[in-house]
Amino acid sequence: MDKAPTRDRILVATAELFRRQGYTGTGLKAVVAEADAPFGSLYHHFPGGKQQLAGEVIRASGAFFQALVLAAYDEQATTAESVRAVFTGAAETLEATDYADACPIATVALEVASTDEILRLVTAEVFTAWTDALTERLAGDRDRAFGILSALEGAFVLCRALCSTEPMHAAGRLAVAGIEASRRIS
Amino acid sequence: MDKAPTRDRILVATAELFRRQGYTGTGLKAVVAEADAPFGSLYHHFPGGKQQLAGEVIRASGAFFQALVLAAYDEQATTAESVRAVFTGAAETLEATDYADACPIATVALEVASTDEILRLVTAEVFTAWTDALTERLAGDRDRAFGILSALEGAFVLCRALCSTEPMHAAGRLAVAGIEASRRIS
Repeated sequence: MDKAPTRDRILVATAELFRRQGYTGTGLKAVVAEADAPFGSLYHHFPGGKQQLAGEVIRASGAFFQALVLAAYDEQATTAESVRAVFTGAAETLEATDYADACPIATVALEVASTDEILRLVTAEVFTAWTDALTERLAGDRDRAFGILSALEGAFVLCRALCSTEPMHAAGRLAVAGIEASRRIS
Repeated sequence: MDKAPTRDRILVATAELFRRQGYTGTGLKAVVAEADAPFGSLYHHFPGGKQQLAGEVIRASGAFFQALVLAAYDEQATTAESVRAVFTGAAETLEATDYADACPIATVALEVASTDEILRLVTAEVFTAWTDALTERLAGDRDRAFGILSALEGAFVLCRALCSTEPMHAAGRLAVAGIEASRRIS
């Protein structure tokens, strides 16, 4: 089977390394080794170096994760079932990957928040896109969308630290309780 | 005014650096510079080096943050007011510190989750202590405690990325809705 183009292999390898060991912990040598690419190809495809590469990876991972989550969401018949499916799916992925495969951008987002303004803005762009997509599905309830996304993101932190899916299921139940509360009010 | 003992200065400086730039991004040279301590004092007080230092910082920051949050929590008359106070306090701190001063251990927790099993266990210990303390205050409802802590942790991620307290207030309202839902059931 032909290998994917070098540029794509570099993006995929970087995304995988960021997810597991973060931005600061990921050196460019590790990226080219993981991507099975010559070192020179990195600066050929990403003349802006690690920061440019990181920006593209954050955007691409953000879009990929959003598509994945929305596919699970949109398959369900009711809002409560949709929200439940997202948290259940996240718990299953965590378990299947030994708690390595969580939010693709959270680690990097925390690392760069106070240290790299350009990359912080890219993570903000991704989180805003997710919030907009969920807000639309919650009939414009941006407040609840932010609450549910917070629960999901925080559950990733707790689940990875504890090697347990218990926080994810609990966060999912809190999110569903929030949906039901919104319904009672509206 | 006398300076604090060297060991304490090193712990405080490391906690501050971890919070802003994470574990991997914090070198021991930066620690001694920030602590105004001679380099040799670091290995004198922490013969296990960066890992030992990090373990002590995670434990100490975890205990400090827990005490701070519980003080805000225990001041209020009702569970809903207590939960609201925690999220409002977190939002105020984020704003006052230009979104730098958030959960003291989240960045490190994500960085070490798949890369350093000893430190992962220390973060797990801290999150478990927080969960236990909140569970006790919620009449044994561990599920809701995990949900609320998830919302708090995730809101820190979103607020820092977006430079906005909107996710924290939204997460707080979701947490309160969850408390009210629990009350209706019980």
